[in-house]
Amino acid sequence: MNGKQISTRNLKSKPENTIPHDDLLELEAKYCSWGDTVHYVSTPNIFVASEGSFLYDRYGVEFLDLQMWYSAANFGYKNKRLNNALKKQIDTLPQLACQYLHEEKIRLASKLAQRNEMAFEEKGRIHFNVGGSSALEDSLKLVRNYSGRSLVFAFMGGYHGRTLAASAITSSFRYRERFGHFGDRAMFIPFPYCFRCPYEKKKDFCDFYCLKQFEKLFETEYHSVVNKKNNKCEFSAFYVEAIQGTGGYITPPQDYFSGLKEVLDKYGILFVDDEIQMGFFRTGKLWAIEHFNVTPDIIVFGKALTNGLNPISGIWAKEKLISPSVFPPGSTHSTFASNPLGTAVGLEVMKLIEESDFATIVPRKGEYFKARLKKLQKKYPQMGDVDGLGLALRVEMCEKDGYTPNKELTDKIVELGLSGKLSAGGKMRGLVLDVGGYYKNVFTLAPSFYITEKEIDLGVELFEEALSKALKKY
Amino acid sequence: MNGKQISTRNLKSKPENTIPHDDLLELEAKYCSWGDTVHYVSTPNIFVASEGSFLYDRYGVEFLDLQMWYSAANFGYKNKRLNNALKKQIDTLPQLACQYLHEEKIRLASKLAQRNEMAFEEKGRIHFNVGGSSALEDSLKLVRNYSGRSLVFAFMGGYHGRTLAASAITSSFRYRERFGHFGDRAMFIPFPYCFRCPYEKKKDFCDFYCLKQFEKLFETEYHSVVNKKNNKCEFSAFYVEAIQGTGGYITPPQDYFSGLKEVLDKYGILFVDDEIQMGFFRTGKLWAIEHFNVTPDIIVFGKALTNGLNPISGIWAKEKLISPSVFPPGSTHSTFASNPLGTAVGLEVMKLIEESDFATIVPRKGEYFKARLKKLQKKYPQMGDVDGLGLALRVEMCEKDGYTPNKELTDKIVELGLSGKLSAGGKMRGLVLDVGGYYKNVFTLAPSFYITEKEIDLGVELFEEALSKALKKY
Amino acid sequence: MNGKQISTRNLKSKPENTIPHDDLLELEAKYCSWGDTVHYVSTPNIFVASEGSFLYDRYGVEFLDLQMWYSAANFGYKNKRLNNALKKQIDTLPQLACQYLHEEKIRLASKLAQRNEMAFEEKGRIHFNVGGSSALEDSLKLVRNYSGRSLVFAFMGGYHGRTLAASAITSSFRYRERFGHFGDRAMFIPFPYCFRCPYEKKKDFCDFYCLKQFEKLFETEYHSVVNKKNNKCEFSAFYVEAIQGTGGYITPPQDYFSGLKEVLDKYGILFVDDEIQMGFFRTGKLWAIEHFNVTPDIIVFGKALTNGLNPISGIWAKEKLISPSVFPPGSTHSTFASNPLGTAVGLEVMKLIEESDFATIVPRKGEYFKARLKKLQKKYPQMGDVDGLGLALRVEMCEKDGYTPNKELTDKIVELGLSGKLSAGGKMRGLVLDVGGYYKNVFTLAPSFYITEKEIDLGVELFEEALSKALKKY
Amino acid sequence: MNGKQISTRNLKSKPENTIPHDDLLELEAKYCSWGDTVHYVSTPNIFVASEGSFLYDRYGVEFLDLQMWYSAANFGYKNKRLNNALKKQIDTLPQLACQYLHEEKIRLASKLAQRNEMAFEEKGRIHFNVGGSSALEDSLKLVRNYSGRSLVFAFMGGYHGRTLAASAITSSFRYRERFGHFGDRAMFIPFPYCFRCPYEKKKDFCDFYCLKQFEKLFETEYHSVVNKKNNKCEFSAFYVEAIQGTGGYITPPQDYFSGLKEVLDKYGILFVDDEIQMGFFRTGKLWAIEHFNVTPDIIVFGKALTNGLNPISGIWAKEKLISPSVFPPGSTHSTFASNPLGTAVGLEVMKLIEESDFATIVPRKGEYFKARLKKLQKKYPQMGDVDGLGLALRVEMCEKDGYTPNKELTDKIVELGLSGKLSAGGKMRGLVLDVGGYYKNVFTLAPSFYITEKEIDLGVELFEEALSKALKKY
Repeated sequence: MNGKQISTRNLKSKPENTIPHDDLLELEAKYCSWGDTVHYVSTPNIFVASEGSFLYDRYGVEFLDLQMWYSAANFGYKNKRLNNALKKQIDTLPQLACQYLHEEKIRLASKLAQRNEMAFEEKGRIHFNVGGSSALEDSLKLVRNYSGRSLVFAFMGGYHGRTLAASAITSSFRYRERFGHFGDRAMFIPFPYCFRCPYEKKKDFCDFYCLKQFEKLFETEYHSVVNKKNNKCEFSAFYVEAIQGTGGYITPPQDYFSGLKEVLDKYGILFVDDEIQMGFFRTGKLWAIEHFNVTPDIIVFGKALTNGLNPISGIWAKEKLISPSVFPPGSTHSTFASNPLGTAVGLEVMKLIEESDFATIVPRKGEYFKARLKKLQKKYPQMGDVDGLGLALRVEMCEKDGYTPNKELTDKIVELGLSGKLSAGGKMRGLVLDVGGYYKNVFTLAPSFYITEKEIDLGVELFEEALSKALKKY
Repeated sequence: MNGKQISTRNLKSKPENTIPHDDLLELEAKYCSWGDTVHYVSTPNIFVASEGSFLYDRYGVEFLDLQMWYSAANFGYKNKRLNNALKKQIDTLPQLACQYLHEEKIRLASKLAQRNEMAFEEKGRIHFNVGGSSALEDSLKLVRNYSGRSLVFAFMGGYHGRTLAASAITSSFRYRERFGHFGDRAMFIPFPYCFRCPYEKKKDFCDFYCLKQFEKLFETEYHSVVNKKNNKCEFSAFYVEAIQGTGGYITPPQDYFSGLKEVLDKYGILFVDDEIQMGFFRTGKLWAIEHFNVTPDIIVFGKALTNGLNPISGIWAKEKLISPSVFPPGSTHSTFASNPLGTAVGLEVMKLIEESDFATIVPRKGEYFKARLKKLQKKYPQMGDVDGLGLALRVEMCEKDGYTPNKELTDKIVELGLSGKLSAGGKMRGLVLDVGGYYKNVFTLAPSFYITEKEIDLGVELFEEALSKALKKY
Repeated sequence: MNGKQISTRNLKSKPENTIPHDDLLELEAKYCSWGDTVHYVSTPNIFVASEGSFLYDRYGVEFLDLQMWYSAANFGYKNKRLNNALKKQIDTLPQLACQYLHEEKIRLASKLAQRNEMAFEEKGRIHFNVGGSSALEDSLKLVRNYSGRSLVFAFMGGYHGRTLAASAITSSFRYRERFGHFGDRAMFIPFPYCFRCPYEKKKDFCDFYCLKQFEKLFETEYHSVVNKKNNKCEFSAFYVEAIQGTGGYITPPQDYFSGLKEVLDKYGILFVDDEIQMGFFRTGKLWAIEHFNVTPDIIVFGKALTNGLNPISGIWAKEKLISPSVFPPGSTHSTFASNPLGTAVGLEVMKLIEESDFATIVPRKGEYFKARLKKLQKKYPQMGDVDGLGLALRVEMCEKDGYTPNKELTDKIVELGLSGKLSAGGKMRGLVLDVGGYYKNVFTLAPSFYITEKEIDLGVELFEEALSKALKKY
Repeated sequence: MNGKQISTRNLKSKPENTIPHDDLLELEAKYCSWGDTVHYVSTPNIFVASEGSFLYDRYGVEFLDLQMWYSAANFGYKNKRLNNALKKQIDTLPQLACQYLHEEKIRLASKLAQRNEMAFEEKGRIHFNVGGSSALEDSLKLVRNYSGRSLVFAFMGGYHGRTLAASAITSSFRYRERFGHFGDRAMFIPFPYCFRCPYEKKKDFCDFYCLKQFEKLFETEYHSVVNKKNNKCEFSAFYVEAIQGTGGYITPPQDYFSGLKEVLDKYGILFVDDEIQMGFFRTGKLWAIEHFNVTPDIIVFGKALTNGLNPISGIWAKEKLISPSVFPPGSTHSTFASNPLGTAVGLEVMKLIEESDFATIVPRKGEYFKARLKKLQKKYPQMGDVDGLGLALRVEMCEKDGYTPNKELTDKIVELGLSGKLSAGGKMRGLVLDVGGYYKNVFTLAPSFYITEKEIDLGVELFEEALSKALKKY
């Protein structure tokens, strides 16, 4: 794929019916809510085309995208096969009320459930919805229905969406602050973020101190969560991202989750695995949790299921939580839940996965990318931490000490990337990076699974250019 | 458009890669959650194609659809113009993180905001999301942010979605029953459902007794909602469907909402207008509320914005509620909020609206349909009430007395329609009807705006056939 | 008893160790919270002695008290027998941790439970606490424990206390307004306040329209409170004051509560009877609810149990709600719950009741008083409503039309009474009146059970004097 | 004072009007709720008299009481001076609605507020109520009113009462488990319980690791409690017992609270000091918090204010939280709030305090008692921890290792003490002990301030007797 040609083609056909750039920005400033994340930068970019690993702006400038819509477009922008699946459905059954069945829904659900049945040796079912938060809400319904309790544990640094109920179990208070009282606020537990251990322990020498701290909560009723007379817990589930997404692509130590699960099982606490960002092979496995030898009770998924072509999302749950006898018809509903366009693309994604070897490709590319970054790290102590699993990579930007979080530097690099004025390969280019992390100083890299080594090299080159420029200004 | 030919074509191309009907149903029974509404019937239908006003099942049987995905596909299934707009976007910018801008988002938002500015003489802004419930949640954020209060009024019979927060303001307790404690439960007020007046008054002779009952709540602090010392109310907003959707397509008396608004204004209570089901000319105007001479503070919309091709939804709010100073960057977020496929189709829908005269067409077709039904009503006293606004029509099924709700009869008619064994025009056909209403005895008819008089005649014929058969069995 | 002599004696012995009046008021203004109700008047009265039906201020002025500490001192101020019981206990077992038993507790509980067992043919138990609100909270625990649900119905105009949970089920929003979010806010139902019928019906011709309105809530799930598929209700109990206290001493029609109970029983909703203000013969029966032929599931009591000598309060509940198997040891606790001073006085009150004939005395005195007031009413149309049950009497002050609430006039009369400058019988006197009612325009009269006809005459005389003076100024 | 003589006298006068012991127990079992703590033991004791440090049962057996009604009767049972103050008030103004003033209320409030003004250099005000929980609820109202937020921090091991709102901030889940949803549940923080350090640090070598862990919560918004953009916290106050009461009389390290306060001040979080159990010189100062060089924003008090003669309780708050402008008339109310009997005794308690030197006496007796216990500890390794401040002493019972909690042994000792069959001094005696602690293995000793060294010696003797017997059985 060649971004340049494409962008030219696109740009030729575009201008006729478009509005001048500044007028567009003016309209946007006036009529669009600023409440989303567009205005995190002072002058937002406008893009007109996307293909493979690239975005193109109105001036034909090519931007290498290392975030892929926060991992929604794992299979590359404008993936021909997936786009065609969507078009085919448009031409047959583009619309159907979700009260009635269509084949793609059934096949997609069956593929996912059968796949999990094999992987986890657990029969389960799929329930669809649209948007990750709405699937998350469905998971809360399952949890509450099953346990009769509303409160849950979740991780500090965790992110589960922005509906009110999802905000209640997402750690950032900022997301709740202006929106009333949250009577279902989760109890937030420190995540094993070993680069910045919440307990200041050294990794590999800590003997899972953090897990033991969690287990201690159950030692006496005075620790606030359990009635020792019947071992019942105030919290019905633990919401987990196997690899924290917005939290900064943090991978916990290998045996963390199995240790956690052991505690939860003792007190009948459900394990809910939010795979909205990390699912669909971002980490080299269908679900990130599969790296950790744990069977979740519920899996929540979304984003990459359709490669970003439709907001369809869903949950998989163990039979005991979702069988028709406990979750009968009418338990919930959503107009677009299993909309035919979404399920058709989802089904094609599953076929693509079956026919590809992402389990090999993703780790291989990930290792290549990580190695390149680690090499760069030697030169730039400001790259405090470089880590990752599969193609979910993190670069944590710090002061010279390699530890103190450096948000300013991070922001500068983002800005330089989005300026489209980097010059790798003798050509004006841009670089699209996403920032996460507890201190907003982590580049969370989620490249296309089809990214080439050459494109990775280009990415590293552009990153270094931006970093060195930022350091000069800084 | 001719449904028959198309279905044949589709059916020819389909079978090769499909699974036998019974196997599909078996897979569905096993791997799909039954928690949605599919299993409201004992054997769910599987459809393979949709076009115009028709759905087609695997055997080529044509079903006249009078519910159009609960009003999501107002502009007809497989509308060529809208499908093409979607395909065009697939070929240019199918994916883009919503943190970055694209032209279609800006133009769609601007069109909607400018249109409302003209209609209501109020500057406002648009915030997108996906799925009606999520847009509803965004509206709650605006309300809470502005008022500092979490509790709201809503109508008995109202429906606003099924996320937890939306369930809290949706009247049916059944939606909350098994899902924990709802600390933000709305205070529900009787809707002016004049056919079954909650106060047993006679329409046109009641002098808006219901409104006066509502106003009475504010007479003394002991009526539970207001502090008379400062006239502040415990409830920050009133959530309204101008025409109740799931509640049974109920149209309130002409002056009801202006009277209500007067009370709300006295106590600084916001008027939130949920147009998810009735918006986009279902009632003959862009927003159903425009029939009632009232300016809402917030409008929530979804469904038909993309004719069902993408779950994009959104809110419009007055500047004072949503300006960047009160609703700053990062106030909320959703991965697919303003996804390019959704905005592209939405923009085309707005152009289609501008170029069409739905304001004339919809009422005209609605009147024709209603007249046909009213004629039928004379023959069948069981059609207790026939009413409607635009192409949002209601037929309330009763006992012979024309009043006592008759759910059993209603269910029989639905079943006969979905059996595909009605025989209008000497051909096996089906009829797709949606049921709503407080007693689940109301056919809520929402046909395509492109439905022809012939198709309406066919619909009435099929309905009568089903009705008369049902009455025999009954 | 003769108030004059007593006051003199007291005043003689007092001054030595007291602080000048103005200094006291200054200290109060500076160091006392104004958050209670003392500063409802601009200059609060200071009293130094109480006896029988009278209060005495520092200047020896005698005030006839027609409110008796809002019905806490039913048996007269400084009742010798009850005071002696308290003193006796002080001299034997003044203190004992409530974890250990003492005879008075057991005997008082047994007397109350056995008395209710006879009256209602229901075995139950007594649980003590201190302060009406705390007993109310205990009743909420029983309700929640039994039903598994937190939400309850309560009446508009109802008052159940001022702890946070009691405020949530007390109608006035003013009590909640500044104190955060109330996730357990009751659903408030109009009380049968027939003088101002919430539905503007005429008493005796209304056919219990209000009850039918309440019953209508259960007709369909869309009315927001019931799941018709299982007839379960979102609300687990209905909190009732048989005669509304703070609401203005309103007596409902004879058959109202039995009709209400019938509805509640259909849906398993508990009937909780708050007798804190009306219990202990204020209405001529031990519990006010006994006038209405209904067996409550829980009775909450306090105030007059000790004639105001100790804040002990409590609940009686049916065995099924409170047996050791459902409400086991440690379910709740309060340091002073069954404190020996409180139980000793309570036990003496019960003996006094057994030995007196308040069932005859109270209605007789009440009728005498009411008759005198009704006579006055003929002269003063501003006395819009004169009514009452036993010695719980109401005079609702209105404009000349006898209907429009007149808070200003009410306040003036209160002020004149508290000025101590009325001149009945050629002597400077005061009159202590309490104000309640939805519009703060109702004198809620709760005289001592030992009030004499002469004192009643004096009360009426003083009242007329204040009223006529107020009307002049007005 | 000599318990023996008194008990004899009492027992002589008692029997005439009493009920046989077994009949009493039978009545209790049948008509009293078991929901309080009486039935923690299998056969509850019945007491008939109390004096000084002693309780007396129906058989004249003398029980040395080392818990003094959980510190409510600090000044000894049947304290003549205080009893007389109560009797005097009974004879003058026993009853008065709290809407009107009486001198004792004003003087008591002034004394307390002036005392605090001197101690803390902060002008404040007093608000009265009855029962500790109700005063606690008033403090929550102040906090919510001032901050506009409902959520607070509290300590694991903390106890603040049993109303619903108090249970929400009391650590034990058992107290909430059966009573619905607690939407205001506190965020519970580990208390510096150094004998069992929650982080397994060694005291004096930990560098306040626990405080640093708390401070870490404020480092990033992802730690769930703070918005770093404005440094506003989700939690408006921190509820503190300076010495944990029910938690087991745990004294934190000297500089803990000042360190904590520093963090709280940075984020505008109020410091609420619950002195219900430790106030009124239990620890040798009026308020326990005065040991720690910190000025609380609110103090909640109760219990010993009247030496257990009246449940009056209250709060002191800084002017900014409670001035009439922010907490105006009618903000709250309670019938018995400043009841004259309670204020009269409270005033006498304050005078007694002024005239006594409890600041010297209490620590001296405490040290004597502690020394005796420490000596015993050398002999019995099962006395894992002996510690205390003033006359709030703790003995933590363990296995032989001196660490593993031993509830069984603790319960045996309690039982032996309550059996009344210990034989110190050649006489049958009993010993009344209270148990607390996270593992219910801590004797929380709160003797009378008038306990003599001889009585302490007797206490230690009885304790050793029970301990050695328990160890034998064990």
